[in-house]
Amino acid sequence: MPERLVVVGGDAAGMSAASQARRLRPDLEIVAFERSSYVSYSACGEPYYVGGLVASIDRLVARTPEEFAARSIEVHIRHEVSAIDLDKRQVIVRNLQDSRSETVGFDHLMYATGSRPLRPDDIAGIDGPGVFGLRTLEDAVRLKQIADQGPGHVVLVGGGYIGIEMAEAMIDRGWKVTMATSGRHVLERTLDDPMGERADRAVRDYGVELLTEARVTSVEDQGSQQVVSGEGFSLVADLVVIGLGAGPEVELAIAAGIPLGVTGAVAVDDRQATSVPGVWSAGDCAEVRHRVSGLPVNMLLGTVANKTGRIAGTNLANGDARFPGVLGTAITRMGSTEISRTGLKVNDATTAGFSPVTGFARGTVSAGYWPDASPMAALVIADRNTGQLLGGQIVGGPGAGKRIDVIATAIWAGMTAAELAWVDLAYAPPFSGVWDLIHIAARRAADA
Amino acid sequence: MPERLVVVGGDAAGMSAASQARRLRPDLEIVAFERSSYVSYSACGEPYYVGGLVASIDRLVARTPEEFAARSIEVHIRHEVSAIDLDKRQVIVRNLQDSRSETVGFDHLMYATGSRPLRPDDIAGIDGPGVFGLRTLEDAVRLKQIADQGPGHVVLVGGGYIGIEMAEAMIDRGWKVTMATSGRHVLERTLDDPMGERADRAVRDYGVELLTEARVTSVEDQGSQQVVSGEGFSLVADLVVIGLGAGPEVELAIAAGIPLGVTGAVAVDDRQATSVPGVWSAGDCAEVRHRVSGLPVNMLLGTVANKTGRIAGTNLANGDARFPGVLGTAITRMGSTEISRTGLKVNDATTAGFSPVTGFARGTVSAGYWPDASPMAALVIADRNTGQLLGGQIVGGPGAGKRIDVIATAIWAGMTAAELAWVDLAYAPPFSGVWDLIHIAARRAADA
Repeated sequence: MPERLVVVGGDAAGMSAASQARRLRPDLEIVAFERSSYVSYSACGEPYYVGGLVASIDRLVARTPEEFAARSIEVHIRHEVSAIDLDKRQVIVRNLQDSRSETVGFDHLMYATGSRPLRPDDIAGIDGPGVFGLRTLEDAVRLKQIADQGPGHVVLVGGGYIGIEMAEAMIDRGWKVTMATSGRHVLERTLDDPMGERADRAVRDYGVELLTEARVTSVEDQGSQQVVSGEGFSLVADLVVIGLGAGPEVELAIAAGIPLGVTGAVAVDDRQATSVPGVWSAGDCAEVRHRVSGLPVNMLLGTVANKTGRIAGTNLANGDARFPGVLGTAITRMGSTEISRTGLKVNDATTAGFSPVTGFARGTVSAGYWPDASPMAALVIADRNTGQLLGGQIVGGPGAGKRIDVIATAIWAGMTAAELAWVDLAYAPPFSGVWDLIHIAARRAADA
Repeated sequence: MPERLVVVGGDAAGMSAASQARRLRPDLEIVAFERSSYVSYSACGEPYYVGGLVASIDRLVARTPEEFAARSIEVHIRHEVSAIDLDKRQVIVRNLQDSRSETVGFDHLMYATGSRPLRPDDIAGIDGPGVFGLRTLEDAVRLKQIADQGPGHVVLVGGGYIGIEMAEAMIDRGWKVTMATSGRHVLERTLDDPMGERADRAVRDYGVELLTEARVTSVEDQGSQQVVSGEGFSLVADLVVIGLGAGPEVELAIAAGIPLGVTGAVAVDDRQATSVPGVWSAGDCAEVRHRVSGLPVNMLLGTVANKTGRIAGTNLANGDARFPGVLGTAITRMGSTEISRTGLKVNDATTAGFSPVTGFARGTVSAGYWPDASPMAALVIADRNTGQLLGGQIVGGPGAGKRIDVIATAIWAGMTAAELAWVDLAYAPPFSGVWDLIHIAARRAADA
């Protein structure tokens, strides 16, 4: 009898692991269970579907169950793993269509249950019927239908990536948009103040009513409308979308006895192995190591899910791959303003034991004399004592955002700010100044 | 009497050196001589002035002589240094307005004469009155005037950066454009064939008639028209622009006895010092060290001129800065297609003693499902034995080109292709796939 891999959760991490295992071990039997109706989809594309930029939900599906079947990967959608028995090496799977359960044995188990949106219980009424989240493709389909019903007033609770991307989407659909964040600015968990304030400006310039330091305490269901309230504000909304971050989906792991780490996500080594032999984990539900702080983190990013899934797939197929860690590099946009970040922000650097100094530069994406050169600002964070690069943030017009990858690569390589200030970067007037703003910010960080 | 710095040549390298020396040594007397009418201008912006994108020639001037004067840097335009006497520590300067010469002593000499366009003498008639080059702002002004006189047929001789940028400019001005290059494809000196062929496609798609492997042997002046001929072709043109590369302007250095290096450019150490005490050189006229090959090269790029000029300025002002070398990173565009490169191309890597292998990836700039996702191709070159990254090239739609900086930074840091394949780069659907094409190309190079 061939060995069997059971994959719990059929999105990026799970299906990356399955695909990689298939490449390396044609003999392995691979079965994946996914409780939603879709596998291997781009959650990051959902706001753009709601906003109408991506025309069909099918476009967000990288591979269908049929396509996996063609590679001898058996995928069962609408099947939820309800329990894992580590002693008997089996899972109990419930078919959500007929509610029948069956038992499936495994030799290898890939735990890739992803994340669940946070719905803090200090917000009264947050689980009401008029309050939506955005996680699965089904969520996106529902929100798209509501957006289609014609413009109204949407209140977005939370100033993170989902909030920003939904704000853009709903403005594009003609809605009035109010965003309420408890932070001093949007993206407070990932951007330092000078950059977060620039992001705020982009949000407001796009037509969003932005309330900062506005903690929502209740959502009251009034039938066709919802009243979103907090200290000093009360908003009547046709639609409420919550984007307050997410946490690892670890209920099954806890019940089964798969150990968690300090972050509350599944503890894994750099081969994505849990401490239970034959049990692997990757993606949003698992910890990863932050490459700068060296600390375990739970980084809910599609890039990390794809990479750690691939690592797990290699190793469970008898390969040997090690995940080299994360920087938390991320990018989004608000209209034509691009916002990106990598590494540690200042206070996180301090917490991690560094003495952060910053270099800030502002100018234009292209040469200063370029017609309609759009503004750009770059922040580089380094350690005062060693010069080691710790982080970076960029806010600017088209072409600015992906330049964060230069800082990410430099951090990855362990470079100092002084070294980054001299790297031979590409220049032509449509693309940058002769000294890239990253050079200038890095030099200022080195001199700080 | 204060020490005096004499700067020969008032463009990027010379004026960067002057500015940096001024910052560090307020006591230094600084005098710069420039034979053209402009100092500190963006030669790279000239095609965009001719093309009408940059509205005024003044916009290409970073700083005027008056602005330098305000910082106590004395600048004389239309003054040509005609001789350097190293024994007497003086230069002879000719005022081009009145043809009078004077002698100016120096304690430090900054030799920053730049480059001169190559005009190969195997092209008969190349120095005729109807044949134009593009180097100084005066050249740009003249070409703009001709372009303004209404559309005609321009033949561009050479398929380098100037050729490509002038082609875009003249198409934008409504001209019929023919480009003749002796290479198998445009940018042959800097791009490998698979990428050069993509660049060719962009050139043709923009409306340019491109002749490859077409060596021009003569330009015949017929008064209002020119006949550009080579084996198998003869083109009647209203305007001929030559862009056959450039070489270091070293006539004065040779006459003075400032030693040149193997490349024919002025030999300098990593502090930009020549072997003559107190004589420094930087920019197009000087050699630099290639960071991958370790060999001296003559790299005619504005970025290098600014950087090496700054290094020279620091050192001649008693500082200590060392130029860390070049990768030859460069970028241009043809319409909406961006073309960039860094490091060694395959045959140059072989010549430098490496065993190059390549990883090629093509896809889209943004996520594949993004509306109108534009195509992008990436090539990563690494050494087969060590995995060390050697070079990279990118051709793609808006947003693709500056991604070369990721490869440049990774090469700079001495990373391997296998390491680059896992760097935490930014992802969101408008900007890239979840695996950046650079990841995929790097992985393929690592596995090659």
